[in-house]
Amino acid sequence: VSEAGNGELAAIERIRRLLPAAPAGETWIGDDAAVVTGPAGEALLFAADAVVEGVHFDFELVEASDVGWKALAVNVSDIAAMGGRPLQAVVSVVGVGAAMLDELFSGIVEAATEYGCDVVGGDLSSGPCLMVSVAITGTTGERQAVLRSNARPGDLLYVTGALGRSAAGLRALRAASGHLEAPGSRSAPGSGHPSGDAALSHLLSAAYRRPAARVAEGLAASRAGATAMIDVSDGLGIDLDRLASASAVGVVLDTVPVADGATREDALAGGEDYELVFSAGDPDAVSSAFKAASLRPPLRIGMCVQDQNIRRLGAEALPATGWEHRLA
Amino acid sequence: VSEAGNGELAAIERIRRLLPAAPAGETWIGDDAAVVTGPAGEALLFAADAVVEGVHFDFELVEASDVGWKALAVNVSDIAAMGGRPLQAVVSVVGVGAAMLDELFSGIVEAATEYGCDVVGGDLSSGPCLMVSVAITGTTGERQAVLRSNARPGDLLYVTGALGRSAAGLRALRAASGHLEAPGSRSAPGSGHPSGDAALSHLLSAAYRRPAARVAEGLAASRAGATAMIDVSDGLGIDLDRLASASAVGVVLDTVPVADGATREDALAGGEDYELVFSAGDPDAVSSAFKAASLRPPLRIGMCVQDQNIRRLGAEALPATGWEHRLA
Repeated sequence: VSEAGNGELAAIERIRRLLPAAPAGETWIGDDAAVVTGPAGEALLFAADAVVEGVHFDFELVEASDVGWKALAVNVSDIAAMGGRPLQAVVSVVGVGAAMLDELFSGIVEAATEYGCDVVGGDLSSGPCLMVSVAITGTTGERQAVLRSNARPGDLLYVTGALGRSAAGLRALRAASGHLEAPGSRSAPGSGHPSGDAALSHLLSAAYRRPAARVAEGLAASRAGATAMIDVSDGLGIDLDRLASASAVGVVLDTVPVADGATREDALAGGEDYELVFSAGDPDAVSSAFKAASLRPPLRIGMCVQDQNIRRLGAEALPATGWEHRLA
Repeated sequence: VSEAGNGELAAIERIRRLLPAAPAGETWIGDDAAVVTGPAGEALLFAADAVVEGVHFDFELVEASDVGWKALAVNVSDIAAMGGRPLQAVVSVVGVGAAMLDELFSGIVEAATEYGCDVVGGDLSSGPCLMVSVAITGTTGERQAVLRSNARPGDLLYVTGALGRSAAGLRALRAASGHLEAPGSRSAPGSGHPSGDAALSHLLSAAYRRPAARVAEGLAASRAGATAMIDVSDGLGIDLDRLASASAVGVVLDTVPVADGATREDALAGGEDYELVFSAGDPDAVSSAFKAASLRPPLRIGMCVQDQNIRRLGAEALPATGWEHRLA
């Protein structure tokens, strides 16, 4: 179960208690993807994530093809955050009109092609609004999956790219559509203003509409010996808090890389950037793994410390705030 | 993609054309579950099915735990219809209040326990109504999956149990709740009246609220050399039409086994019984496989014929009608 906010933590905890414990060698609820045992006894990654109209997107701001892209890409990101690559996806679509179906699936297929994921089935239903639920399988090949829970004090913290583009892009889209606050859509607290530059606005909007999943980066991090990894789906503060809590370490950040056109608040609490945050003990191994894969080097943002209560950004507290899915 | 009615066929066909063709040895859209290649190169079954409030269920008639049971059981049934057993499920829940969450998951866990399926993850979201989307993996072990498409002229047709209980149970529940036609809920055309017998009503209602998935029966059918198989999710007429069309054979039924308390129309067009219909060439192999598994023998209902345009029940036409999910 992907934990979509602290308001949901109690619910997730209740679900976890209702389910049996995972056997040794498997990881169930509480990571980006579950690590389970496939038919041949091998490790299989398995995850699901739904996007809901009026909660995760708003048709005044995005096209149906964007919704399709995002529904698949956020699931690929869950596999990437384990150091895996995607294999297959099934898609449950509720409440799509016949007119919109092709457009929705064209976005799904574009993302599936981009990430080498086979869309192999699913189902269609009527319903009161558009909901797209994707489930995905993946593999880490010969390597172990990178969990959230194995960061150690002294490990360095990295992020695969600057943050805040998605939140800034959402703001740019709202401004362009003439409403600054879309009902039911997410809003970044303390938001600033997007750059007036049209090219930058376009870039930011694209980051919101069509987020990239960092599959190659996740694999490079795994090869570099990453000890823990998570994708920035809900905000750096809240996602790093999850990694730290799962690993029972504290985190001290020196810096937060803010994307061009985004605010510091966007970068810290905006979410939906889908960059990967990971911990690793050997900076040389990190450099060479990313270089070997022809990837830009990840950005070093801080380190893990022994005291598991610490969440710090420079001299300040690092707030564990971000996008929170509310239970109805 | 599970085909939920002929009204959906055009949409499913469009989706199929948008997706690349499955490679040799895999089966994607158009069967109960997809047959794909797992991380170790082995066959993996993968399927998804969603249930939506006001479309598939109505809280005036069922409890949240029933919804949880059904959401998981219908997915297990998709695996059973391939001759497989379930491995893992992930669950996306939209629009569940905190108060209902425990009850919903208690039903999910009951079904998961009954069918030996691990619930390993998923996600929670807010939304305008309750929707539960389950995705499931499964395996056929050393055996090949039983597709819909390999029935041959001359094969006998079997069903694993009498039909119509679910439709009759829905009618009994509606009668008990004081409304004969629940808005948005499915209605069996030409319905009769449930028996006044309270025990029978209870049995029928239970068949609607908590359908059984026929995993052991599907495995026995596979061992008996079943050439094609499908679960009766939408109605015998429509589901048998799918099997016949996929296999390019005609079907001639001698009989339709009607469950106690159900009408012939319930049995033909009611759907949601989740019994398995299969074709097989060797009746002795069928008898002995079911006997070896200590299962009641399946009911022989007819046979496959060469002329692929034939859909007959005795002297009459077999109507391909049943529950149809409408696209909004």
